[in-house]
Amino acid sequence: MKLIVAVIQDKDSNLLQQALVDADFHATKLASTGGFLRSGNTTFIIGTEDHQVDDLLELIRLHCHSRNQVISPISSLDANTDGYIMHPVEVEVGGATVFVLDVDQFKHF
Amino acid sequence: MKLIVAVIQDKDSNLLQQALVDADFHATKLASTGGFLRSGNTTFIIGTEDHQVDDLLELIRLHCHSRNQVISPISSLDANTDGYIMHPVEVEVGGATVFVLDVDQFKHF
Amino acid sequence: MKLIVAVIQDKDSNLLQQALVDADFHATKLASTGGFLRSGNTTFIIGTEDHQVDDLLELIRLHCHSRNQVISPISSLDANTDGYIMHPVEVEVGGATVFVLDVDQFKHF
Ligand code: NI
Ligand code: NI
Ligand code: NI
Repeated sequence: MKLIVAVIQDKDSNLLQQALVDADFHATKLASTGGFLRSGNTTFIIGTEDHQVDDLLELIRLHCHSRNQVISPISSLDANTDGYIMHPVEVEVGGATVFVLDVDQFKHF
Repeated sequence: MKLIVAVIQDKDSNLLQQALVDADFHATKLASTGGFLRSGNTTFIIGTEDHQVDDLLELIRLHCHSRNQVISPISSLDANTDGYIMHPVEVEVGGATVFVLDVDQFKHF
Repeated sequence: MKLIVAVIQDKDSNLLQQALVDADFHATKLASTGGFLRSGNTTFIIGTEDHQVDDLLELIRLHCHSRNQVISPISSLDANTDGYIMHPVEVEVGGATVFVLDVDQFKHF
């Protein structure tokens, strides 16, 4: 048994959630924020058998896309902007950051 | 040391939280959604000593009940309903999905 | 690779988040509540290389402070107050509860 923790962009979360349901994975969605851009993201925790981990990772990869996004350093940082370049920059955000954890015990009541 | 991740129904979360406090377990509640029905659930993360894991699992089992719930496939799925049976169905939901994880290091500052 | 789960007080979360960005750690913030006082807290999950765990723990320790806080048992508990002492008490809250977990696989898509 593994516990997968996947941080993805909000924009991808509905499609990924539907894909997980279709493939009969049991996922829970946590409200989350942050990462470098502090933009909206969603954290899924998904329990799965060891032999299904590769299929699950492939599903996440397919549904979570990298995107270019223009950010203004002023709006994306707190008041403390000394020393930062102040014109907008384009950065790549997404697609998914995924941690696979070993599960010591799994219970379903 | 273990970290317990428990996904339970919203309806059970206040009673479980009180029970955890009474038993002197230190729990944190995360806002979560989803699972197959996308119904409201709550995720607890709880740190505990190895020798208290069984007591904690029993506490969760006692306070988290399975329930039958009537769902309408239309409201519980997105617009994409092709191929689904459209009349309401009764399904069993809950009680708790619990993952016990090994902790490599634990710190309290 | 390690996954750090850090539960800290809301009051410390903006400073810690900025410090994590400055030090180039990739953190995700989850909305959370609870612990004994049910006061507002924030849960960070942070992925990091093994050799950076000590630096990360030190960063968390530096930015998350214990505080004394006066609580009223009436407002901090549900209706069920039988047997509790009813006058306000001062307790120490914070600073951070941190779990370091081994990561079996890490993927970035
Ligand atoms: Ni799909
Ligand atoms: Ni009870
Ligand atoms: Ni700092």
